[in-house]
Amino acid sequence: MAKTPTPKRVRRPVLLAIAGDSAAGKTTLTEGLAEALGKDRCVSICVDDYHRYDRQERKCLPFTALHPDCNYVEIMEQHLQLLATGRPILKPVYDHGTGLLARPELIEPAEFIIVEGLLPLHTKLARTCFDVTVYLDPPEDVRRRWKINRDTGKRGYAVEQVTAEMERRRPESDAFIIPQRRHADIVVRFHPTTGRDDPPDTPLSAELLLRSTIHHPDLTTVLAPGMQQTIHLTLQRDEHGRPVDALYVRGDTPREESRKVENVIWSSLVGEQGDAPSTLGAIGDDRRSEPLAITQLMLLYHLLDAVQ
Amino acid sequence: MAKTPTPKRVRRPVLLAIAGDSAAGKTTLTEGLAEALGKDRCVSICVDDYHRYDRQERKCLPFTALHPDCNYVEIMEQHLQLLATGRPILKPVYDHGTGLLARPELIEPAEFIIVEGLLPLHTKLARTCFDVTVYLDPPEDVRRRWKINRDTGKRGYAVEQVTAEMERRRPESDAFIIPQRRHADIVVRFHPTTGRDDPPDTPLSAELLLRSTIHHPDLTTVLAPGMQQTIHLTLQRDEHGRPVDALYVRGDTPREESRKVENVIWSSLVGEQGDAPSTLGAIGDDRRSEPLAITQLMLLYHLLDAVQ
Repeated sequence: MAKTPTPKRVRRPVLLAIAGDSAAGKTTLTEGLAEALGKDRCVSICVDDYHRYDRQERKCLPFTALHPDCNYVEIMEQHLQLLATGRPILKPVYDHGTGLLARPELIEPAEFIIVEGLLPLHTKLARTCFDVTVYLDPPEDVRRRWKINRDTGKRGYAVEQVTAEMERRRPESDAFIIPQRRHADIVVRFHPTTGRDDPPDTPLSAELLLRSTIHHPDLTTVLAPGMQQTIHLTLQRDEHGRPVDALYVRGDTPREESRKVENVIWSSLVGEQGDAPSTLGAIGDDRRSEPLAITQLMLLYHLLDAVQ
Repeated sequence: MAKTPTPKRVRRPVLLAIAGDSAAGKTTLTEGLAEALGKDRCVSICVDDYHRYDRQERKCLPFTALHPDCNYVEIMEQHLQLLATGRPILKPVYDHGTGLLARPELIEPAEFIIVEGLLPLHTKLARTCFDVTVYLDPPEDVRRRWKINRDTGKRGYAVEQVTAEMERRRPESDAFIIPQRRHADIVVRFHPTTGRDDPPDTPLSAELLLRSTIHHPDLTTVLAPGMQQTIHLTLQRDEHGRPVDALYVRGDTPREESRKVENVIWSSLVGEQGDAPSTLGAIGDDRRSEPLAITQLMLLYHLLDAVQ
């Protein structure tokens, strides 16, 4: 009898949105996830590539790159829908170095697609394309420091240019970027621990607001009483009065303690063999952040959980 | 009583494909149609913009721009499907001047969309997007003359470069361009009238092969016996043995005679008021071609007929 070939199972890709203002930490978070999942399984795109105007053209316009009118929002929605149904896209490319709109690139969907940028959660149609949505919400002074560091370094601007641009963008940040926060399943806030005077190299602490719009793992089983010092969970209400869990991970969490939590989440919740990927938590130059590692692990949980 | 607003009727755009080799006359035919329909109702795109590689990259590749592997065929199909359902696309742009892949452009669908290029009829999925399909099939010596004129003029090449490139492309033209001919509803062949010695400025004659894959107008009522000299219709078989009508329009057809036929087609077949658009038949520099005018009018008939 002839063998019946096993039908190739076509999986719908899992899409994760990481929204947030300029220099909110989107790329760092994305890179750690992409590395943990591997190039074969994960592709990431930045929706700031959907800028409608180049840098020169924007100088003559009454809005900044943050404004939806400054972006091909409808095309972004269309491309997200295509990716969500497993189809390739020819993605536009904005070159941050030259400020020009460059030659587009072909993006073939992978099992996991991470979509980061300024406005991935701006419209309802775009939001419906995602399995998991994250908003990065650092305090403004932290973000300012990050933005100055990056833009004066990698992008070659002067400090005054960066701070002037941030001021110019503030009304549009308030109008279009921050409102996306309410649509996120998870709001991540990296911040200095209040009321403590940590040594200067201590990583920032993280607060993860876990909204009930998606099914979070039962962390009460993971966080043993002994750890409550540096990692703990609190039932509270978000700014809209909705009940949420808040997961706190203090910046000075010892590696061993974080490692224990990571491995328990990885094996018992994610259901994977062995230890959690050791690349999680990398913040460049061999530095590590346990709060970032736990954050990335929580997102890995959701990505793997969303695979049908 | 409050007025009920009239629901805006969303029409599916009508798509016309004009396929053919390089310098087969696609742009001239397209421009006349676009002008007759008007900018508000008609948009045209060239699918050679879907080149996957720029000119420099192609030099290192074992195929020419005519090869499907040298083009984002799947993305072209996707964009044709989007346009056919009335959605906008962010179309890639190939700059013939620089040979570079440039910044993409937004194309909003109009009532009529003309899609011309080397490979619009290459795949079945692409072909299903069109209401009317045309293949331009000039004799090779006519096309060679047109290509040399255009490429040494507008595109700045030397004659030897153009003829060498034509030779290099021939196997891929045979393999990928010419096979599209069999899928066209109408095959248009502009050619010198055989056996005649016309004055040098006489426009080329046209032969239109009208396949029964679409419903052609009944031209027997239009072509009165007195005209049979210069414009006539013949029942024949195409190269695959399928019965077709062949419409011949001789290059020396007097303007008055052509005008009469045009106006009858325009009013009785197309059903429009007044005379046929006088811009039809323009071949630049104030020259006219009656065969081109009749060809464009036949296509206008099909475009207007396809509007549901």
